[in-house]
Amino acid sequence: MMSAFPRLGVIERHRFKHLHNKMGGLTVVEVAREIAFPVARVFFVTAAKAGMLRGCHAHRRCNQFQICVGGRVEAIFFDGENSQSLMLGKGEGVRVPAGIWGEQRYLEADSALLVLCDQPYAAEDYIEDRDAFIQMATSSRIG
Amino acid sequence: MMSAFPRLGVIERHRFKHLHNKMGGLTVVEVAREIAFPVARVFFVTAAKAGMLRGCHAHRRCNQFQICVGGRVEAIFFDGENSQSLMLGKGEGVRVPAGIWGEQRYLEADSALLVLCDQPYAAEDYIEDRDAFIQMATSSRIG
Repeated sequence: MMSAFPRLGVIERHRFKHLHNKMGGLTVVEVAREIAFPVARVFFVTAAKAGMLRGCHAHRRCNQFQICVGGRVEAIFFDGENSQSLMLGKGEGVRVPAGIWGEQRYLEADSALLVLCDQPYAAEDYIEDRDAFIQMATSSRIG
Repeated sequence: MMSAFPRLGVIERHRFKHLHNKMGGLTVVEVAREIAFPVARVFFVTAAKAGMLRGCHAHRRCNQFQICVGGRVEAIFFDGENSQSLMLGKGEGVRVPAGIWGEQRYLEADSALLVLCDQPYAAEDYIEDRDAFIQMATSSRIG
């Protein structure tokens, strides 16, 4: 359990190797060089239609790398007080530390997100109530 | 460098957790439990159009897990003498050991393959000439 939830700092876009040619598309992630943690879990997420918002939770311990591999995805971050967002095109990703609320808008019908995590699944790691998250994040900073 | 290229054994389909509901799709890979190796590299591959064949190479040292995350993919394997193929639907994957020639046919326009590897990229790990592969594989078994 973290002692204090982090504040949003500089959110940096990382460009992975992404090729698109007459064969199709290829995105490559070199884990040791590009990801700051060993990969314990991998998600692949799509949306039923363009414009949908998914995610909408924070993790207590799990750090993630979110990588757009199809269409465009708006990655939205919230630390309980301030929010930021970043538009990710194909092959672009962003590191999301534990303790930050995340939402992802799938802007196109073929938008897809690849998520690399440093923790296996644990139900108790998820904070899915936004008001509870705000309370936990802000109280961790004054207490 | 391997002393002998493996023969094709039983190729087993692995079904990962795959959800599809009104929000969209979600495929989950638990690395420690489902993948027999630490993940050093991740690919995401799509094809320019339905029916295209990609891959068409072997690796000297790299073991892979190939996971269909969109459409349907026919995974084809060849040990230099015999071949097998396996149809993968969404959320289905197969382990591909080093020393097996692999080809993947992207059967639908939205077919997509997620590939987890136990080695970082190394150009010398690729065998891309099929005749050379056959020669190497068969001679490794008689020598």
